Amino acid sequence: MKLSELGEDAVVRELIRGLPLGENVIVGAGDDCAVLGRKTDAWWRLAKTDAVIAGVHFLPEEKAARIGWKALCRAISDIAAMGGIPEHALITLGVSGDTDLAWLRGLYTGLRKAARRFGVGIVGGETCRSPGATFINIALTGRVERKFCVLRSGGKVDDAIYVTGTLGGSLAGKHLDFIPRLAEARWLVAHHRPNAMMDLSDGLGSDLPRLAAASKCGHELWPLSIPCTPGSTPVNAMNDGEDFELLFTIALTAAAALERAWRKQFPKLPLTRIGHLTRKTPRSRGSSRPTGYDHFKAQ
Amino acid sequence: MKLSELGEDAVVRELIRGLPLGENVIVGAGDDCAVLGRKTDAWWRLAKTDAVIAGVHFLPEEKAARIGWKALCRAISDIAAMGGIPEHALITLGVSGDTDLAWLRGLYTGLRKAARRFGVGIVGGETCRSPGATFINIALTGRVERKFCVLRSGGKVDDAIYVTGTLGGSLAGKHLDFIPRLAEARWLVAHHRPNAMMDLSDGLGSDLPRLAAASKCGHELWPLSIPCTPGSTPVNAMNDGEDFELLFTIALTAAAALERAWRKQFPKLPLTRIGHLTRKTPRSRGSSRPTGYDHFKAQ
Repeated sequence: MKLSELGEDAVVRELIRGLPLGENVIVGAGDDCAVLGRKTDAWWRLAKTDAVIAGVHFLPEEKAARIGWKALCRAISDIAAMGGIPEHALITLGVSGDTDLAWLRGLYTGLRKAARRFGVGIVGGETCRSPGATFINIALTGRVERKFCVLRSGGKVDDAIYVTGTLGGSLAGKHLDFIPRLAEARWLVAHHRPNAMMDLSDGLGSDLPRLAAASKCGHELWPLSIPCTPGSTPVNAMNDGEDFELLFTIALTAAAALERAWRKQFPKLPLTRIGHLTRKTPRSRGSSRPTGYDHFKAQ
Repeated sequence: MKLSELGEDAVVRELIRGLPLGENVIVGAGDDCAVLGRKTDAWWRLAKTDAVIAGVHFLPEEKAARIGWKALCRAISDIAAMGGIPEHALITLGVSGDTDLAWLRGLYTGLRKAARRFGVGIVGGETCRSPGATFINIALTGRVERKFCVLRSGGKVDDAIYVTGTLGGSLAGKHLDFIPRLAEARWLVAHHRPNAMMDLSDGLGSDLPRLAAASKCGHELWPLSIPCTPGSTPVNAMNDGEDFELLFTIALTAAAALERAWRKQFPKLPLTRIGHLTRKTPRSRGSSRPTGYDHFKAQ
């Protein structure tokens, strides 16, 4: 069976079945990052890999510095989604021998800019000839206090569901120069303890069902409450993907205090309640079943 | 200027200039692995990324399980080259939607087999659609006792130079089912303290000058002493690449004891002295300047 007939989630489920985990693994495949350490450690280590590929995640003619920024910020967004602090990155480049050195320099300008801004060290990597499309793979490590670490799977029935920022229309430009919500996530985990969190990379329509499923809950989404980027419809907000906003859930009793504190702390960034977790049911209330971006389904 | 005109080492030198390193970095880009931790820690962490690409590192029609084995064992070989113990791997796959699920299953069979044999946990990764060539990127972490960690840069003038195994002819099959010299490297660092070490991935002709340069030494290579794989010439041994044997240097005074102990410990694996480090001079004694594999120079 072809991957395009199966779809991304089924492919991933198939691959992670029966993997050897080794020692000192708190969370393996399936969350935004792997979480490594012993149960009783005060700090846990985080690890993430992520690739951007020409023709899929960026157009080959795009400015190289923006591609570098995006490549590293995607992985930083995943570290943020665990409540963590990014530390060290390794860069693997696959490029053709025809690539101009100026392009590579531009790419590294973007990588360095993102690294400096978010306190990441670039400590190595590998550059190899790729006869096919150019790709940039980022491996990023981080750390998080055990008491602050937030998984996708911690959501509870009746939790309020929130998203930061606005969703949809990322292709108009935001996907290349978004700001990973690192400061916001650190503030959240330190002050308001979300139960579950992830970053929105494939669109709310894909990612919210993933968070709910990991938490063994259903979800009720209020379609009219979805904060759309100007020029985007709720359908864009559900499906476009690459928003790199935070999606999290928090106890209903903590919701009002969170909203007040957020407005004071981040007056320019919207925080929107878009629904709540429910007992496990297969459907959201949306009129059509949302799908989001799937890497393998025919688009 | 095109990468193919510059060559791999010049590209890498260009890219790693002025990288932000962040905190707690013992060794950044330029060695087999990044070494992370504080100077006084008893254990340091190791990190490595490495990709294999269809048409460059394997033929698309090759058995998927062998490709998976190779992909993970390449990175394990780099951890071994620091004297370390591999721990956790993250796998990034770039594959076309036309890929058959059976191929992916085969790939993971090879990855799992290598992971189990060498004690590696597979803790996550990412699967994305690649319109170009299939690639598999491995990010691997490890650990090493500070007192055992061996860099490329520790070689000293008059050190004896050794290689394990035999070199050349890897394309005949060994490049797909080699055994990373993890047990040998751990034994070496615990009992005979090499001054410098790396794994041979691009061929002795490329890699020995890299080790010597990192150690700020010259080198004298005895061409007639190079241990060639049956069917290979010294030219193959210098240039074919993908041997994944250990190349290391050790004080001349320790050489005789090492050779005796090695024969007892690893009676089936040759250990061969092939020359020595010298004061910095640009040339080895070889009749033609060896080159090894370069990812970007026209082959």
